[in-house]
Amino acid sequence: MSSSPVPATCKVILAQGIAKKLLGEVATDLEKLTFKPKLVGLLANEDPAAQQYADWSMATCIENGFDFELRKFTKEEIEDEILKANNDDSIHGIIVYYPIFPAPSLQDGYIQQIVALNKDVEGLAHTYRFNMYQNIRFLDAPHNTQKSILPCTPLAVVKVLEHLQIYNSVLPYGNRLYGKTITVFNRSEVVGRPLAALLANDGATVYSCDLDGVKLFTRGKGIKKIHHEVHDMEGMKNDECLPKSDVVISGVPGEKFKINTELIRDGAVCINFSSQKNFDGPAVKEKASIYVPSIGKVTIAVLLRNLLRLVGNQGKGAAKPVEELN
Amino acid sequence: MSSSPVPATCKVILAQGIAKKLLGEVATDLEKLTFKPKLVGLLANEDPAAQQYADWSMATCIENGFDFELRKFTKEEIEDEILKANNDDSIHGIIVYYPIFPAPSLQDGYIQQIVALNKDVEGLAHTYRFNMYQNIRFLDAPHNTQKSILPCTPLAVVKVLEHLQIYNSVLPYGNRLYGKTITVFNRSEVVGRPLAALLANDGATVYSCDLDGVKLFTRGKGIKKIHHEVHDMEGMKNDECLPKSDVVISGVPGEKFKINTELIRDGAVCINFSSQKNFDGPAVKEKASIYVPSIGKVTIAVLLRNLLRLVGNQGKGAAKPVEELN
Repeated sequence: MSSSPVPATCKVILAQGIAKKLLGEVATDLEKLTFKPKLVGLLANEDPAAQQYADWSMATCIENGFDFELRKFTKEEIEDEILKANNDDSIHGIIVYYPIFPAPSLQDGYIQQIVALNKDVEGLAHTYRFNMYQNIRFLDAPHNTQKSILPCTPLAVVKVLEHLQIYNSVLPYGNRLYGKTITVFNRSEVVGRPLAALLANDGATVYSCDLDGVKLFTRGKGIKKIHHEVHDMEGMKNDECLPKSDVVISGVPGEKFKINTELIRDGAVCINFSSQKNFDGPAVKEKASIYVPSIGKVTIAVLLRNLLRLVGNQGKGAAKPVEELN
Repeated sequence: MSSSPVPATCKVILAQGIAKKLLGEVATDLEKLTFKPKLVGLLANEDPAAQQYADWSMATCIENGFDFELRKFTKEEIEDEILKANNDDSIHGIIVYYPIFPAPSLQDGYIQQIVALNKDVEGLAHTYRFNMYQNIRFLDAPHNTQKSILPCTPLAVVKVLEHLQIYNSVLPYGNRLYGKTITVFNRSEVVGRPLAALLANDGATVYSCDLDGVKLFTRGKGIKKIHHEVHDMEGMKNDECLPKSDVVISGVPGEKFKINTELIRDGAVCINFSSQKNFDGPAVKEKASIYVPSIGKVTIAVLLRNLLRLVGNQGKGAAKPVEELN
């Protein structure tokens, strides 16, 4: 045997490759349909980042065989325009670009709940969020034919973790992160908190870090609890979570924030879902076994996957009418 | 005829008197029941103001013949505890004391949607909010037997305006503020924005003022529109609304904020719903025809009124079972 050591190089994995696999699955499902599903994007702000995201989602839709229409309005029109799209049978999914009414306004939270449940491609409806936190995977228990929609970015992170085999498929479905310790920087309602809950629901021990400290998301002792529980880790500092973690996931907005790379465990897996670089590239590669610098393309692939789920939930999923299949 | 001028004195009207009338109506409705409706308060913060509001709601419940139970928890327990109360048939109404997860967290917005629709005494459920903004008054159109719940503080302001005869009962129901111009300082999602919408839905021209400027809430031209529309009044300053207004309503938190009394129209009606004094007492009395310095007691009366509506919506409103009445 050769005596040369295992190369200590960090493997950088790009979102594109992970997205490609997902888009392949999407294409297979799309082929079964007799029509092009249509996503409508509603833009009611002047934010160039939102316009860019809209352009990007349009391009990905078109490339992958979906219809996409961007509609622009004033913020005062958005409520009525969502209601119109809700009632339009030719539209299968709706994406609203936020923020419309920036913080500290809470009006966006109201707007999110206007989108019809069966067209909410981003999974922002309270019903979907509630199901996610409560680890309920279908809308129509006990029949379990209508899948609950998961929010795109948290689900994209899950898909990345599956791709990286952090999810251990030897374990039963729903418990494939059991034994893993994961730190998530960001505890926003849109991404960080749902992500921590999803990972804990799948069995991980999750340290959730934000400006107001650390919370521990677990499923409690063993594998018995059906959904996560949360403990306030009073006095624990965000950085203290790093050496404990098999996986470090970060999504902090702003250029200033950097993960303290020195504290990361050798061989940890590091994933950045911020639009900024939360990890210092050269430094993290000295520590991590795998580094995923961004996940945006996976998020868009997940969006299309969600759209197909909605089409299914709308009873339009099969090439033949459902009655004929029965 | 006497030549003495009309006394130019401002009439100060206290919340207590207005509340008394509402509580009288509540008592009449309560007598028709064969049981004491029970309100449960869920407290999961250390805020002394929340504890005080809890104590106050308890005292008002007990005094007026309702059952009240205060339950205290950690913030991590609140979701499961709301679900328990939702499923407990002996509980008719639920009030959660906010903030639990203070701003900038948006988690309270999630928690608000956990309370069962038919126990949500504060009217914070999305369905109720949506109905309010869309001017839909019942949950079960076209039967119209289940009344939609309005949020307590905005509804309390409406009740104050009715008491003061700003609502003109000569006009048809739903249009009784037609011709009135009203300025509301505060455009929060919890009070100011719903209030502006309610008043506009009833026909008023409403200037809604907040840190980010003025918005005009109207029903559009004439009395045809079924719900309000909103226009951004770019460049208009908050103070410019004052001389235009028949009624000035203010609910700005913080001790620093004061309405510029000099700009208020002679004979205007002024109402403060902030826990702070937004109007300078002596100065406002030089201008206003009516001044209502606080509305807290009306808000609690409205809470009990909402509780009775919930009991009605739960099918428990009549002394005899509904079947016997049919």
